[in-house]
Amino acid sequence: MRSSYAIGVDVGGTRIAVGLVERKGRIIKDAKSLTPKGGPFAIVDEVIDMVAEVSDVVKQGEIVGIGIGLPAQIDFARQSVEFCTNLPLAGVDVRSLVMSRVRHHVTMDNDGNLAAFGESKYGAAKGIRHFAMITLGTGVGGGMFIGGDPYRGFRGLGGEIGHMVVQLDGPPCPCGGNGHVESYLGRPAIAAKGRDVAVTHRGRAILEVAGGDVNLITAEDVIKASFAGDQAATEILMEAGVVLGKTLVGIVNLLNPQMIVVGGGIGEACPFMIDRAAEVIAAEALAGRRDVRVVAAELGNDAGVLGAAALAFEESDSKEGLNR
Amino acid sequence: MRSSYAIGVDVGGTRIAVGLVERKGRIIKDAKSLTPKGGPFAIVDEVIDMVAEVSDVVKQGEIVGIGIGLPAQIDFARQSVEFCTNLPLAGVDVRSLVMSRVRHHVTMDNDGNLAAFGESKYGAAKGIRHFAMITLGTGVGGGMFIGGDPYRGFRGLGGEIGHMVVQLDGPPCPCGGNGHVESYLGRPAIAAKGRDVAVTHRGRAILEVAGGDVNLITAEDVIKASFAGDQAATEILMEAGVVLGKTLVGIVNLLNPQMIVVGGGIGEACPFMIDRAAEVIAAEALAGRRDVRVVAAELGNDAGVLGAAALAFEESDSKEGLNR
Repeated sequence: MRSSYAIGVDVGGTRIAVGLVERKGRIIKDAKSLTPKGGPFAIVDEVIDMVAEVSDVVKQGEIVGIGIGLPAQIDFARQSVEFCTNLPLAGVDVRSLVMSRVRHHVTMDNDGNLAAFGESKYGAAKGIRHFAMITLGTGVGGGMFIGGDPYRGFRGLGGEIGHMVVQLDGPPCPCGGNGHVESYLGRPAIAAKGRDVAVTHRGRAILEVAGGDVNLITAEDVIKASFAGDQAATEILMEAGVVLGKTLVGIVNLLNPQMIVVGGGIGEACPFMIDRAAEVIAAEALAGRRDVRVVAAELGNDAGVLGAAALAFEESDSKEGLNR
Repeated sequence: MRSSYAIGVDVGGTRIAVGLVERKGRIIKDAKSLTPKGGPFAIVDEVIDMVAEVSDVVKQGEIVGIGIGLPAQIDFARQSVEFCTNLPLAGVDVRSLVMSRVRHHVTMDNDGNLAAFGESKYGAAKGIRHFAMITLGTGVGGGMFIGGDPYRGFRGLGGEIGHMVVQLDGPPCPCGGNGHVESYLGRPAIAAKGRDVAVTHRGRAILEVAGGDVNLITAEDVIKASFAGDQAATEILMEAGVVLGKTLVGIVNLLNPQMIVVGGGIGEACPFMIDRAAEVIAAEALAGRRDVRVVAAELGNDAGVLGAAALAFEESDSKEGLNR
């Protein structure tokens, strides 16, 4: 009989979440903590403690393995962390460090890929063979499934939808490029637009939501003000929806997917931004591709844990297949 | 023994080329003609005549089949022509019409996909499993190989690199969108830049190449002037190289390919435009992906015929595989 549980680990820039996950996607036990600031070993130690904490309710042999999602560029074949902007993990052999202390197989992947993995197994893209996922958060990431399999590219570094150019002379992107999607749709970009408006009469509602200090305005404040009926905030987000739509026009024309899944904290908080993007696609994508479904992600805050667990199940099942 | 020849048919907006092609990619006999203007049946009749003309030097049984490339959106699985801007073939069952008159299996595909197919089998991308091809001509098209196979997407409509958005508020694209790659890099866009400069003092050399009539300036005239040492023309093409590079930064970040192949009449005429694009990629793509090789296509004018023949071989071999 196939083992029934996997452990999903979602390491973020500020938080770590770990869950013991049933094969069907139910989280049996979970643990959450802040990401330690004391360097790579502190992070690895915390992950190991949290794995122990969630796994004590089932027998060792019932766990197929551990999936770990990192906000990093990961060479999937080598299981190495190539680049990691927000955490000191580049070049650290996270997988071996964890495996040396727990008795489970560990597989790592980029958090955007795992969000797509989770939606594919348990969420909005169940049964969909060709889809692209874009995650709108502090960074803008994503992943793709092609022919039912995750697409990783030559060195496992594919899927960076947030770093496609949408404006030749666009603003600087945190990655060092210019005019990338992330420089329009990341939290800092939306917050900056909020601050720009907040210093004018039109932005009073946004300023109030942020407690009156223009420097403290966040992307979430803009969203809150919009939901409270503020027009200036809504315009910022509708414009973001147009940029999202134009980005996805490119993806739709290039990849001809069945579905686009929009996730991440900002994406999930703003259904009307997704609707606006869908309108742009319906109007501007090449004919024949406009029937692509544009939907919100379904896994919310659990996306990282569920995606990582889905990867662990997948790895375990494909190895079983090879051994037959 | 496997049959040794395929017939490649390249139907363009202005010309049709047909070749009898050896398995290793040598064209044994070819035929060329202007594309008839008398409607779809005239085009199909011409193709059938040309197929007969090139195939008389070998025995019927030695030909595995016919590949046809069209400047059209083709639903590959259904083998139907969905959209065709330059020729009256949309909705016409080209494949059945040809098959009803020749005794060979016929497979159709988009010309951009077939250019990639040709480079994969016989050209710059031999042995490369992950690559994207962009063809710069009157239109801007392309194709992708992923894991050694051509990527077609959900309905066979993938690969339209020319219709990714690179400028949110960009100029109109012939497809109806705005700011697409084609609106910067297609022949009409480059010719328009040439005309803009030609009415000023700086553009005298371009005007001279075109015989003194500003309205007759073509993209090829700009290229000629540049090769003759004209700085204004070179600047136009270097700027196009930057747009090409920014486009490919998105492709590289999204797909993490091993190689990018740049083809089409404009791409092949302008090696320095390709070099400029490669510089932009080396400077702006996300780290870890910058080692992508950016190369010129190798098949030149034969790309269409060789790509179509490669498709015919591929289809025949995969059917043989199934029958084993």
